Amino acid sequence: MTLGNDWFSEAHPDGGSAFSLKITKKLHEEQSEYQRIEIFETEQFGNLMTIDGLYMVSGRDNFLYHEMMTHPSLYTHPAPKNVVIIGGGDCGTLREVLRHPEVESALQVEIDERVTRLSEKYFPELCELNNDSRATLYFGDGIKWMADAKPGSVDVIIVDSTDPVGPAEGLFTEEFFRNCHRSLGPQGIIVQQSESPLYHGKILKALHGAMRAAGFEATQTLFFPQPVYPSGWWSCTMASKGLDLKTFREKDVANKPFETVYYNSDIHRAAWAMPEFFKRLLG
Amino acid sequence: MTLGNDWFSEAHPDGGSAFSLKITKKLHEEQSEYQRIEIFETEQFGNLMTIDGLYMVSGRDNFLYHEMMTHPSLYTHPAPKNVVIIGGGDCGTLREVLRHPEVESALQVEIDERVTRLSEKYFPELCELNNDSRATLYFGDGIKWMADAKPGSVDVIIVDSTDPVGPAEGLFTEEFFRNCHRSLGPQGIIVQQSESPLYHGKILKALHGAMRAAGFEATQTLFFPQPVYPSGWWSCTMASKGLDLKTFREKDVANKPFETVYYNSDIHRAAWAMPEFFKRLLG
Repeated sequence: MTLGNDWFSEAHPDGGSAFSLKITKKLHEEQSEYQRIEIFETEQFGNLMTIDGLYMVSGRDNFLYHEMMTHPSLYTHPAPKNVVIIGGGDCGTLREVLRHPEVESALQVEIDERVTRLSEKYFPELCELNNDSRATLYFGDGIKWMADAKPGSVDVIIVDSTDPVGPAEGLFTEEFFRNCHRSLGPQGIIVQQSESPLYHGKILKALHGAMRAAGFEATQTLFFPQPVYPSGWWSCTMASKGLDLKTFREKDVANKPFETVYYNSDIHRAAWAMPEFFKRLLG
Repeated sequence: MTLGNDWFSEAHPDGGSAFSLKITKKLHEEQSEYQRIEIFETEQFGNLMTIDGLYMVSGRDNFLYHEMMTHPSLYTHPAPKNVVIIGGGDCGTLREVLRHPEVESALQVEIDERVTRLSEKYFPELCELNNDSRATLYFGDGIKWMADAKPGSVDVIIVDSTDPVGPAEGLFTEEFFRNCHRSLGPQGIIVQQSESPLYHGKILKALHGAMRAAGFEATQTLFFPQPVYPSGWWSCTMASKGLDLKTFREKDVANKPFETVYYNSDIHRAAWAMPEFFKRLLG
């Protein structure tokens, strides 16, 4: 069939595929200082934000990404008090971070304030903890912020970025990871969204290499489904200064004082499982 | 963006979404006795077969489905000698079954011979073991075949069917599973493709119910990515006559005499992990 004008489509040149959502209304569009932001009401995926024509976040399936970007790393760190989010302007990652009672400070460093202001309006559920006294919304360049960060001051860094082209390209480099490494405490962890296991093997292999070259001793990719992103299969990659990335606070997960939609201990362990082709890719 | 005429799109009414592949050539189309079959050459997904406008199999990503429909159940059964595939006309499941040296007989019961003949032409890699002396290709009604099957004669049944509408609807019923139950030996296992965890919760819940009502004591859904199917996230559900579905022949997996692209012991265990929302769904 051919999709009519009531569909939003993102084509993925890396895969020769496209994913589309049926749209019931365009709610907003603007050119911010950095990018073109559009908001749609979809038939079955809730509200949808796109940036430069690419899916950013939908009401229906963002729980997968936001939970997996947050809970595995926070439950791996023994005491995540200071958390920094690079990007993450929709505030969904911030919300998941603030659900952890151990967190004393959560700083979101988003370059484009308009992403956050539009999320507050169109994705209020993702922003429901923005006024938590532990939260700081800072609008500025995450690469520069990390270069200037106080050494050893951060427990967990979450790089919730767009694809590694354009403004986010610098978030996938050895230099950026060296700055992250320096800013992290001795048990510090970084987690980075790391694209599709099926389409972006080269990016994933380079990411592991850049993290190791920057001084991180352990790296671990986690796999999870994400319908609106290319191939519907996504990943994030954790790195640590020697902290075992295959041990986590399972008792705390079992007793977590908040509900999740996707994440639990079984899902945490399952996300580590490397397909055969991925093992071969990493060598 | 709007997708042009060089894309094949399948819209998913259950999710308000669509998945598309960029097409470079239409290779074949026909109306068989049962359905409309089309074959395309895609830009990056290899050849593609669609039936009645729905994705059946692509060259690029079928390894996920075929491996997960086969190896977990065959490595859970202690000695899978006699395997019956209901549907599976593209022969990809048959190929994976025949890779197991323990298998003495593999019968594929496909209603539409044209699916297999077209697969032989356009997906020769999936059909490379069709001439194995242990393989039998039978073209007929899988529901009827199962109703007439000799009690206790089968070790593993793989229901590699289309969606539970139209001809495949009868493959999701308690009556069909009762016939499967009778045809299986004391340690017998059935595995059924079971749709998208995100879109088809009702079907999955009903499937577990129907399998249990038919006499199966244990049921277990396995989750895996599958880009060309709705939501990009798919599942199959195993059922057994009391055999523990969380134990499998791990040593044999470690020493398997064939290569896989996705499956291994870690992937097997990971596929069991139930998301929180799925636990709530099954109650």
